[in-house]
Amino acid sequence: MEKLIITAALTGAEVTRETQPNLPITPDEIAEAAYQCYLAGASIVHIHARDQEGNPTQSYEVYKEIKEKIEAKCNIIFQPSTGGAVWHGPEERLQPVELKPEMATLSCGTCNFGSDVFMNSEEYMEKFASRMKELGVKPEMEIFERGMIENAKKLVKKGLAEAPLHFDFVLGVPGACPATPEDLLHMVNAVPEASTWTVAGIGRHELPLATMAILLGGHVRVGFEDNVYYSKGQLAKSNAELVERIVRIAKELDREIATPDETRKILDIVRG
Amino acid sequence: MEKLIITAALTGAEVTRETQPNLPITPDEIAEAAYQCYLAGASIVHIHARDQEGNPTQSYEVYKEIKEKIEAKCNIIFQPSTGGAVWHGPEERLQPVELKPEMATLSCGTCNFGSDVFMNSEEYMEKFASRMKELGVKPEMEIFERGMIENAKKLVKKGLAEAPLHFDFVLGVPGACPATPEDLLHMVNAVPEASTWTVAGIGRHELPLATMAILLGGHVRVGFEDNVYYSKGQLAKSNAELVERIVRIAKELDREIATPDETRKILDIVRG
Amino acid sequence: MEKLIITAALTGAEVTRETQPNLPITPDEIAEAAYQCYLAGASIVHIHARDQEGNPTQSYEVYKEIKEKIEAKCNIIFQPSTGGAVWHGPEERLQPVELKPEMATLSCGTCNFGSDVFMNSEEYMEKFASRMKELGVKPEMEIFERGMIENAKKLVKKGLAEAPLHFDFVLGVPGACPATPEDLLHMVNAVPEASTWTVAGIGRHELPLATMAILLGGHVRVGFEDNVYYSKGQLAKSNAELVERIVRIAKELDREIATPDETRKILDIVRG
Amino acid sequence: MEKLIITAALTGAEVTRETQPNLPITPDEIAEAAYQCYLAGASIVHIHARDQEGNPTQSYEVYKEIKEKIEAKCNIIFQPSTGGAVWHGPEERLQPVELKPEMATLSCGTCNFGSDVFMNSEEYMEKFASRMKELGVKPEMEIFERGMIENAKKLVKKGLAEAPLHFDFVLGVPGACPATPEDLLHMVNAVPEASTWTVAGIGRHELPLATMAILLGGHVRVGFEDNVYYSKGQLAKSNAELVERIVRIAKELDREIATPDETRKILDIVRG
Ligand SMILES: [Zn+2]
Ligand SMILES: [Zn+2]
Ligand SMILES: [Zn+2]
Ligand SMILES: [Zn+2]
Repeated sequence: MEKLIITAALTGAEVTRETQPNLPITPDEIAEAAYQCYLAGASIVHIHARDQEGNPTQSYEVYKEIKEKIEAKCNIIFQPSTGGAVWHGPEERLQPVELKPEMATLSCGTCNFGSDVFMNSEEYMEKFASRMKELGVKPEMEIFERGMIENAKKLVKKGLAEAPLHFDFVLGVPGACPATPEDLLHMVNAVPEASTWTVAGIGRHELPLATMAILLGGHVRVGFEDNVYYSKGQLAKSNAELVERIVRIAKELDREIATPDETRKILDIVRG
Repeated sequence: MEKLIITAALTGAEVTRETQPNLPITPDEIAEAAYQCYLAGASIVHIHARDQEGNPTQSYEVYKEIKEKIEAKCNIIFQPSTGGAVWHGPEERLQPVELKPEMATLSCGTCNFGSDVFMNSEEYMEKFASRMKELGVKPEMEIFERGMIENAKKLVKKGLAEAPLHFDFVLGVPGACPATPEDLLHMVNAVPEASTWTVAGIGRHELPLATMAILLGGHVRVGFEDNVYYSKGQLAKSNAELVERIVRIAKELDREIATPDETRKILDIVRG
Repeated sequence: MEKLIITAALTGAEVTRETQPNLPITPDEIAEAAYQCYLAGASIVHIHARDQEGNPTQSYEVYKEIKEKIEAKCNIIFQPSTGGAVWHGPEERLQPVELKPEMATLSCGTCNFGSDVFMNSEEYMEKFASRMKELGVKPEMEIFERGMIENAKKLVKKGLAEAPLHFDFVLGVPGACPATPEDLLHMVNAVPEASTWTVAGIGRHELPLATMAILLGGHVRVGFEDNVYYSKGQLAKSNAELVERIVRIAKELDREIATPDETRKILDIVRG
Repeated sequence: MEKLIITAALTGAEVTRETQPNLPITPDEIAEAAYQCYLAGASIVHIHARDQEGNPTQSYEVYKEIKEKIEAKCNIIFQPSTGGAVWHGPEERLQPVELKPEMATLSCGTCNFGSDVFMNSEEYMEKFASRMKELGVKPEMEIFERGMIENAKKLVKKGLAEAPLHFDFVLGVPGACPATPEDLLHMVNAVPEASTWTVAGIGRHELPLATMAILLGGHVRVGFEDNVYYSKGQLAKSNAELVERIVRIAKELDREIATPDETRKILDIVRG
């Protein structure tokens, strides 16, 4: 089985210090959290920037600062979000791609997201994919519902993305696909052969779906963006603590952890 | 096995006379098509109104005219759409519910719909469900993606809809869940026990999914809204022709057809 | 989708004239039933021989007589059983293979069969496969349980059978895998790519599983061996009547019927 | 989620000291291994007796000695095998049930078992079930193939066993159902509601299937009967070492371990 790629989703767009006091917010905090996750075994860091008030921003400048601060510390793969927050417009969301990061997320369709709607029309998916392709940025196809896999495949048919695709199944968002084992398997069985995939279970589903991914040959995303608890009623101390648990479980299950350079090979990421 | 409920979706919001010359558009045409489908074996008719230019409208008056004209001809269950067209606002879409029809559709989430986005935020789903409940209108939960089943269940938890729910799996819309047998089974396995369900396969998927539903104990929706062809490259002559084929297949498979009154019992519809 | 191969399983080892008065028993009756099924649309005829008392026999001579009588009438593919009856020994069961028929069945494992045990140890499976390979007889891998697919694949690994394999899922035998749609799909998803498959649903499951196979791109086996009824409580008049219904359903579902020669191509059968 | 029941299958009928030097064979060794597993967290011990030459025996006397020696050490639930070795006759296999243990296994059908056939005809299943019922022994329904679940349900219908049933899915035996995650889920989805289940993955499948069971709310069996390795190429030091790993994984996954008395409650075992 392929070595395990662990992505740390450090901050997200919705979590606040009120719910998770150790949330990294400033570029320095985010870079330090990324470094701690790297030390723990993560090879990709999924980034959402925040402005000086702690609100989500897709600002090129802030992402640039975060990227440089992370790169100064370690070799981890920097993966900015192009999802941003649900109220960000598409132009705004696309900005961090201009930094030519090795990867970026690409949300593959529209769905409810709690009481909001997370908008990703076909037009904007195509625009995001094109720009990533032009700049040599590997897209991580974010899948919140079954049909989004088809949308990602259509991007390949139109020449806007290249197979084999790399998917991220984000399961358990209120309003979108739930996080049962059956749903994960249904997703896994639906991706084209030779695809790679990771799973981000939301809230209490993070740990069981991560463990299933370790067993099934998939990869794992954990972090405060998806889940702020270590166990029921007990907040996690840090993103790194969540990564460390995955590493321990993978070790028990005899699956090795990929370094950033091994992850680049698995995902066929060509460094700029 | 329960008798088979056949719904005829006569017109839809997107089909035109250019693609299907026999599309019923005026209230008289729609009522006549409903009557022909009734004679063929349909017990529910799913209605989208059109204005005098043939464009989709959610006008109370037009739905009223259609409803009355259908009721003058036969006992078929009148089920207006609250989906309308993708550009209709929610207030507009809700209008035909004020007619207190026996049933109406209730789309249970947001998804891409080709190059459009079909918006059904949590707020509007709840508003639609409340109003249907107040007026004694049985909702048909329209499901385009897996997560929408959860959204429907949440309406029950909040007291805005009553179990057992009746679902309509609309599969094969570009941008949403595809129409494979595995996807249909995955949906069927996800609904609460005692639920009833029908399936509307889009385009060339209408016939195979309808046949699977006959086998699985589900119900069937066919009609020009979902599919304008009789077979590859050959347009259907009428909505009734599509209903007739389902009746023939059900007969071969030894499943009886429900009359409108039997359908009312199966779906627990209380007449006003 | 590939054209549909219909196999008629005319007689079996267990059915009697008491339960099905029109059961073909003598070589003449079997040949005539085969011919009627051929006219109806079957391209393969699955044969169990009976002796003069009507008891199952694996006698070379009786199979030879049946084979010749069928070939005198039509071009249908003659497929003898090597399953025989549950009390037949393996040497006995293998005899009709010596006739070098184009195909023969090969049961891929042991399971309960009502109150009997249907014995197919690894040793005998390998012996049967070897002999079929030597004589150029295409095996139809009879699968009564999930693990039997693995047993068939092992024959390929050992060089005793050649991929792509052709499977027959016999579902609904008391004591072995039941005949639910989920079980059929689970089997279909488990065969190696490029495999072909047919389904034989037992008793009242014959028709629904056959219909699913038509939809899923599989093939169909019907006949008195598997089911003696036309509908609940009503005996079928003939094997051909069961074939005719499949042909009608396939036509409704827009799937063409394979002739014997088209079947030979689909299954890559080289005529002696 | 229910607390986790861990069964230790210490010896089996086929493993030898050549393949696993630490295999417990004598009653004293087996009792000591049971005690070590109990200390590690197991609440059930699945027992196969061996004679003085180390060969499998179903002798009442030897099982009695083992039972007494285990009971002298701890409170763990003693569960003798009625499967025995593939060459044991049914009368022989049934002997340890006469000890009136709290539980015993009941194999629910016939299948190939490598180059052997593991015989469990309907007649003997019914006989075993009857006797267990008479003596108040809780059966663990051993399931090697999908159809065996149906066989177990039939025992309930005939009044020979009582719902809710407790199943053991033994997956990965050469000749029977393989040990993929899909196969486990397919089994889990097929048992009657309110059933409990455990999984015994054979060889390298033991650990991944055990982990899935922890996630899915099932229970776990590990031990030398099913698997002699700790990891690839590295033999386990003891049965207890395999139990300890399950306990550690369960702890990481936040699932508590059932004591023997908690297990008695979960399985509704009435002590004599
Ligand atoms: Zn994100
Ligand atoms: Zn509609
Ligand atoms: Zn046969
Ligand atoms: Zn055992």
